[in-house]
Amino acid sequence: MKPHRTYTTVILAFCAIFAALPWAYAADPLLSWNDGAAKKNIMEFVAKVTTEDSPDFVPVAERIATFDNDGTLWAEQPMYFQLIFALDRVKALAPLHPEWKTREPFASLLKGDVKGALAGGEKAIAEIVMVTHAGMTTAEFERIVTDWIATARHPKTKKLYIEMVYQPMLELLAYLRANGFKTFIVSGGGIEFMRPWTEKVYNIPPEQVVGSSIKTKYEMRDGKPVLVRLPKIDFIDDKAGKPAGINSHIGRRPIAAFGNSDGDQQMLEWIQAGGGTRLMMLVHHDDAEREWAYGAKSNIGTFSDALMEEAKKNGWTVISMKNDWNRIFPFEETK
Amino acid sequence: MKPHRTYTTVILAFCAIFAALPWAYAADPLLSWNDGAAKKNIMEFVAKVTTEDSPDFVPVAERIATFDNDGTLWAEQPMYFQLIFALDRVKALAPLHPEWKTREPFASLLKGDVKGALAGGEKAIAEIVMVTHAGMTTAEFERIVTDWIATARHPKTKKLYIEMVYQPMLELLAYLRANGFKTFIVSGGGIEFMRPWTEKVYNIPPEQVVGSSIKTKYEMRDGKPVLVRLPKIDFIDDKAGKPAGINSHIGRRPIAAFGNSDGDQQMLEWIQAGGGTRLMMLVHHDDAEREWAYGAKSNIGTFSDALMEEAKKNGWTVISMKNDWNRIFPFEETK
Repeated sequence: MKPHRTYTTVILAFCAIFAALPWAYAADPLLSWNDGAAKKNIMEFVAKVTTEDSPDFVPVAERIATFDNDGTLWAEQPMYFQLIFALDRVKALAPLHPEWKTREPFASLLKGDVKGALAGGEKAIAEIVMVTHAGMTTAEFERIVTDWIATARHPKTKKLYIEMVYQPMLELLAYLRANGFKTFIVSGGGIEFMRPWTEKVYNIPPEQVVGSSIKTKYEMRDGKPVLVRLPKIDFIDDKAGKPAGINSHIGRRPIAAFGNSDGDQQMLEWIQAGGGTRLMMLVHHDDAEREWAYGAKSNIGTFSDALMEEAKKNGWTVISMKNDWNRIFPFEETK
Repeated sequence: MKPHRTYTTVILAFCAIFAALPWAYAADPLLSWNDGAAKKNIMEFVAKVTTEDSPDFVPVAERIATFDNDGTLWAEQPMYFQLIFALDRVKALAPLHPEWKTREPFASLLKGDVKGALAGGEKAIAEIVMVTHAGMTTAEFERIVTDWIATARHPKTKKLYIEMVYQPMLELLAYLRANGFKTFIVSGGGIEFMRPWTEKVYNIPPEQVVGSSIKTKYEMRDGKPVLVRLPKIDFIDDKAGKPAGINSHIGRRPIAAFGNSDGDQQMLEWIQAGGGTRLMMLVHHDDAEREWAYGAKSNIGTFSDALMEEAKKNGWTVISMKNDWNRIFPFEETK
């Protein structure tokens, strides 16, 4: 071996050891998680798939983890935050639409009767979503979302919506990434409603966000190309749509998935069916004191008894917010 | 400053300098490119967007480059390789379909009359694509593609199709990635036809492949979830579809784009309209000796006179395979 080669080896080894030091002495990466089955399952899973001589070892390129958003990464009560955004937009747009004063679901909404407006069910919601999410360019919509998310506040906590993210899940995202995982959002929410802020809030770039979408159309406006958002559903990324969305956007099967409701069942099934060491987890909202307690009977984020049965049968880990998390939101104290 | 802190700084600085050394003395990263405008434009663009004190600096997260596939990264003559795949599949499936003997476009195809089969135009091609690309699960299709790509050989060169990739473009992909770029494919070709081999061949993982797609359906087969490929177009990632595909899969505007035909015009327009320092390039197939010479009059990879006009008008760089590349395929000698 040439002397130069030897020096190189020594220096590289030294750099490698030095780089590893901070990790060796790092504090608990999942500080907001209480000791228990959930935390243990996460850490054991990560140890297994990252240990090179383990039969469960997974190469970095295949370390893909998918996260639902509403109720998994951020809160979803008293209703999906995107629906609150849509209602706010109806109010903002009302002066341009005098006809809404006498037309449902808008008439009820503008009188402050949200329940009455939503009584029209899916059709009413679809109409509200379309008038507030379509008809503008993608760039215009991005600005609208960015402005709203920077200023609108939650009716109960008075916090910004992007402050109402779960501290334990932020730690989990960072922990997985530190172990070579690529983290994706796979949500029923609108893909272009999430992308303007997920990088800042979750460190998840736009290209790693999968969601529901409407169709867009490329056209020239004043000699400049734009994509116009059309009032036409393109894809619903929920329930059986989630594996299809994963297949379309990621093109390979994740090895870990995190959800919180019936809408996530198929995603977890799909991950598990890949075989090998897999991690499937469901956040259970059972903390009425620090967050909300809901589940089987809630229309939002339904966690049915059937899902609980599936979780038991398949060995999915149910995370109890009450017992597994010592802190819910970043703005709160550790309990 | 504590002594420990000082050591740390010195060591980190040393590591940084050491890590930078190989680059400073590296060989030409674009060895297969002749000196000329094309190579110069690439290197100047990369220098600009990666120089921190430059007004053109672009943060790593926003360094996205998109590449067409057919005719840009690999060859496309005498017809799109995916069409050759489809024709091969028709022959393989023929024993299961005795009715094809008397039904066009299959009857002509099975008699070896490709031209006759394709005389039916888009309808004939769509029919061939659907019977060969739909009706199986995504996992089954992946295996079919993987088997074909590992064994089928090009009629002229007798090479595997994945050997018929352009050496200068492989160097360009690697050079961009070494400079912090994320490289994506944005192709009119089938997304699931490309994903099984793009990581191995181009170092582009499945989640960075955008292409045309058919719809899939999630269902249970023998208690195991599968995605079944339906004979129904989901999305055509060509012409005005390319900016829409980029918006859907990447969610942010690339700063560099590479194509070779009329199908790439809108992608290049879209990248350029983002403003700032951008790189738009078109590969021109003008080397009948080493590859093929075609363009304005070809049905495959049409490079129309109108596109050439657009390129001139907008300052897009046209790459002459004949003059700008000293080597076309990895299996060839440098010229």
